[in-house]
Amino acid sequence: MSELRALCFDVFGTVVDWRGSLIAQARSLGDHKGIAADWERLVDQWRAGYHPSMERVRKGEVPWTALDSLHRETLDRLLGELGIDGLDEADREWLNLGWHRLSPWPDSVAGLTRLKQKYIIATLSNGNVRLLVDMAKGAGLPWDTVLSAELVHRYKPDPLTYRLAIECLGMGEPGAVMMVAAHNSDLVNAASHGMQTAFVARPLEYGPGQSRDTAPEHQFTLVARDFEELARKLGA
Amino acid sequence: MSELRALCFDVFGTVVDWRGSLIAQARSLGDHKGIAADWERLVDQWRAGYHPSMERVRKGEVPWTALDSLHRETLDRLLGELGIDGLDEADREWLNLGWHRLSPWPDSVAGLTRLKQKYIIATLSNGNVRLLVDMAKGAGLPWDTVLSAELVHRYKPDPLTYRLAIECLGMGEPGAVMMVAAHNSDLVNAASHGMQTAFVARPLEYGPGQSRDTAPEHQFTLVARDFEELARKLGA
Repeated sequence: MSELRALCFDVFGTVVDWRGSLIAQARSLGDHKGIAADWERLVDQWRAGYHPSMERVRKGEVPWTALDSLHRETLDRLLGELGIDGLDEADREWLNLGWHRLSPWPDSVAGLTRLKQKYIIATLSNGNVRLLVDMAKGAGLPWDTVLSAELVHRYKPDPLTYRLAIECLGMGEPGAVMMVAAHNSDLVNAASHGMQTAFVARPLEYGPGQSRDTAPEHQFTLVARDFEELARKLGA
Repeated sequence: MSELRALCFDVFGTVVDWRGSLIAQARSLGDHKGIAADWERLVDQWRAGYHPSMERVRKGEVPWTALDSLHRETLDRLLGELGIDGLDEADREWLNLGWHRLSPWPDSVAGLTRLKQKYIIATLSNGNVRLLVDMAKGAGLPWDTVLSAELVHRYKPDPLTYRLAIECLGMGEPGAVMMVAAHNSDLVNAASHGMQTAFVARPLEYGPGQSRDTAPEHQFTLVARDFEELARKLGA
């Protein structure tokens, strides 16, 4: 086993609570504008549009499009489908940039701060660079650097995304880099490139009654309850 | 003029004192190994090999090669040419990784820390990502993210490097990003892509008697004596 030097983190769901954050922001906008709507449903469907929208880019049906733009297209479609009226261009843009303002899980900042003392910590996310940097500044996520699908114009699980982390953080040595994620599939992909893997369950990511990714379904390098336990297990 | 959101910094010479740092490290290695040599000459010639080695990549004479490897090739050649014997593989590797351990100019950390409160701060350097991340961790440089020639496999002044910063930090808006450098040519190139520019002279970068880049030679957005003055002028 290579000496571990760097950890790269999936972000949406693994580091930040996109669902809770977006529902709170949408509800506050609705209150401010006097619009009643099922904001939970909007957010759940918004996220449900995430993979299909990236799939169109992956398949080459549309040219490279940053996640901010995919989010905005999905949002505009959903506001129409759900009959949510009264949001002007500035409101929609503010709502869309809500992805730049997501809140971390309670253990994220403390765990990352500990891990940073001993390892390089970076994102490896489908979020665009600016989204990830804005989020880090707002939430106090102490990344050493931000790696993003935007840098290779390919979305995870494209091999180029994992190879980006291996080249840039591991200096070509896959085992020097560990992927940390709350999603089994992300880790299975990372492992297929030789990376180390850590599973951290986030059983509330999709709200109460979540059925997917509540436990590790494969043999990963490490399993931890949260980032503080991850730091402990990694001696940080 | 676009609203300024992000600053990206040239690193070698602008943020860190490569010459003083490398001479001190080489001298300490020489003392430790009992090797007498003109370490200043080695370092000056090492840096003199920087542009020619990148030029071979730029012209396509060799495939993409990260700066660490270019540095190592130049170092090995120079140790032979200067007749410096007695450095084994581990010594050479340690010396080469000296570029990961460069010390900042006295105002760098304080100025960046102020600027980070108001702006995104990032590198835009020919150093590879790992070099820049290691340096930041060692020197306490508080980058929001690290942008590097390695991410586009092209060395500055290739247009792809400046466009990387404009795409990722400015979300496509060149004027939202300011290039900060101690080198006139870097800023002239950045300006040609529509970026804002700030010149900070580093009159000791090349040692006493430096003749190049001691003053701005073009019309830049800003000129500052050091990073603290830059922060003041930018209201940070």
